[in-house]
Amino acid sequence: MKFFSFWRSLASFRVRIALNLKKVAADVVFIDLDANAHRDAAYREINPQMALPSLVLDDGTTLFQSLAILEYLEETHPAPPLLPADRKGRARVRGLAQIVACEGHPLLVPRVRRYLDHELNLRDTQQAAWRRHWTVETLAALEGHLAGDKGTGGFCHGDAPTFADICMVGHVTAAVTQQIDLGPYPTVKRIFETAMALPEFAKAHPSMQPDTPEAMRAK
Amino acid sequence: MKFFSFWRSLASFRVRIALNLKKVAADVVFIDLDANAHRDAAYREINPQMALPSLVLDDGTTLFQSLAILEYLEETHPAPPLLPADRKGRARVRGLAQIVACEGHPLLVPRVRRYLDHELNLRDTQQAAWRRHWTVETLAALEGHLAGDKGTGGFCHGDAPTFADICMVGHVTAAVTQQIDLGPYPTVKRIFETAMALPEFAKAHPSMQPDTPEAMRAK
Repeated sequence: MKFFSFWRSLASFRVRIALNLKKVAADVVFIDLDANAHRDAAYREINPQMALPSLVLDDGTTLFQSLAILEYLEETHPAPPLLPADRKGRARVRGLAQIVACEGHPLLVPRVRRYLDHELNLRDTQQAAWRRHWTVETLAALEGHLAGDKGTGGFCHGDAPTFADICMVGHVTAAVTQQIDLGPYPTVKRIFETAMALPEFAKAHPSMQPDTPEAMRAK
Repeated sequence: MKFFSFWRSLASFRVRIALNLKKVAADVVFIDLDANAHRDAAYREINPQMALPSLVLDDGTTLFQSLAILEYLEETHPAPPLLPADRKGRARVRGLAQIVACEGHPLLVPRVRRYLDHELNLRDTQQAAWRRHWTVETLAALEGHLAGDKGTGGFCHGDAPTFADICMVGHVTAAVTQQIDLGPYPTVKRIFETAMALPEFAKAHPSMQPDTPEAMRAK
């Protein structure tokens, strides 16, 4: 199994956490988005969309889209489960994960940032305001769903990590990078800290990867 | 079961198709996004994020996020299946669905359009160029994955509709609204036409809903 990853990619971060939690070994291939390595012919053949992450199985099948990869890992390596056993619980966890993956994150990815910069010629302050606006909106959506819901426990759903926590920590990492105050989102903050205290989450963090640039590495 | 829907919402369109295919009856409650009905206290209590669609079960549980609702319907009403039986096939279908739901669609939703209009004060031509850019990019991503892949059949995956087709038809509907030429995306175009010929898809179309304004109705 080959896992095509980039240290800063928050979608790669999700898959790294799932691989760690499920103790699935994969050969990691680092694709340097900053050097446009995802546009090389070799990677284009693997993933015609030139997006990260990709998981290439031993038979050559390429899996794409981080949440689809998470579902595949859940089906092939069910322990520990990253979805609850009951259907309503699974719907809640998937919904929480999708608030990040289908609403917040897509507005913050490099290709959108490039469009704001090169096509719309936005000033740096406007670009920062865009990132902040959508980051904060998603934090508020998560807090609204998590605070006071009886399904919320030590983690987003119950007392073990699920897809929801995996997606949430990436989003909070984006917020921390922007120095956004997490005070108004106490449930999100508490769960983020609980999750990141687990070695499977901590080792998957963007600041801890073999391809993390020296200046960005956790000290 | 109560389904909170809006005629023009492409995420609501997805759930309508799945309900039709699985022959699941739901009382439809129309939430007029244009009149800001999603911000009313009554709907806010159901969905604190004030987003559409929501599916409220008979025990009061609210399901949110269209793909999480689709997964729930698949688990509770397995016939006809909207995911393939094999794991790799399921991963492909979910990945294709997520190209729309996690990449293309989030850049075209009303709250992003409002931001472009009110916060960035973009000219109409710039707003139209934004919509066109991301619509076309997603059409190209879908065509790249579908054309020449042996998994592609009469539909996105094999010869029966799946989550992938359900998401794709909404995206192509957005392209058609913008009068984007589908010529460069022949596989997408062919599958769109095949899917929309099914009554379960046709009846779910934005132009065919009880709350569709007269001027937007299919003649």
